[in-house]
Amino acid sequence: MEARKVADDGGALAVALAEAQAGRAEGGIPIGAALIVDGEVRAVGRNRRVQAASVIRHGETDCLENAGRLPAAVYARATMVTTLSPCDMCAGAILLYKIPRVVIGENRTFRGAEDLLRARGVEVVVLDDAACVALMDSFIAAEPALWHEDIGEA
Amino acid sequence: MEARKVADDGGALAVALAEAQAGRAEGGIPIGAALIVDGEVRAVGRNRRVQAASVIRHGETDCLENAGRLPAAVYARATMVTTLSPCDMCAGAILLYKIPRVVIGENRTFRGAEDLLRARGVEVVVLDDAACVALMDSFIAAEPALWHEDIGEA
Repeated sequence: MEARKVADDGGALAVALAEAQAGRAEGGIPIGAALIVDGEVRAVGRNRRVQAASVIRHGETDCLENAGRLPAAVYARATMVTTLSPCDMCAGAILLYKIPRVVIGENRTFRGAEDLLRARGVEVVVLDDAACVALMDSFIAAEPALWHEDIGEA
Repeated sequence: MEARKVADDGGALAVALAEAQAGRAEGGIPIGAALIVDGEVRAVGRNRRVQAASVIRHGETDCLENAGRLPAAVYARATMVTTLSPCDMCAGAILLYKIPRVVIGENRTFRGAEDLLRARGVEVVVLDDAACVALMDSFIAAEPALWHEDIGEA
């Protein structure tokens, strides 16, 4: 658990983006996430497909795993912050734990299950952040096969 | 990778049920899964909340993780077999990887995102297996708090 405070959604996104950038520096897929509870960073995570040969550790799910086993009451006041629009699996994890709010860096390079989240009552905020878009654009151009693998495409 | 052949859905469910029973014997949540490709068991998995303090390793996601990084063409001819109706996260993982067919042991003790799977074109078969029901009934009666934690409830 970390004690970092974040002032607002932009500050929280900066934490998630730092995770994404760290992932890229490791040769991984640059998607990061942060779980914010009561204005503090409870956990961070990043996509681990390359680093851990993982097919289930996306940014959001890695972040939830790093947060550990939490009571439902903690998830109920959490915000999941992610650099990229959540895929079906990550949206499902957010729904499973009834996290009521999701902040998304960008949904231009990939648009996930935002409609499902909204239909189930989750507040979804899209910040349309230029740095998040640039990081994914550069990654997808450099590593198209790896990117397609991560989203279940041929 | 394992080379076990399964004759039919019932044979595949027996493999998943053995995983669930192994999880119960470890003090864990008794939900198991198997990924079947071309009539063979490609991987098995079981809920690891207790054993690994994991919040993302449900039966199905643990099974996908154990299967490793697979090409989309392999997922495209796979069947996910699970002892219990898949939760939102596990259904999302099935959708992410475009697994076209899901076999469910039972959905009496918990009903997950079967409607979402069907709406997205996944074939869903429910075997209504008495041994799967009995295992979950016994577990839920013995460990209600642990069970509620696993499905994100208070």
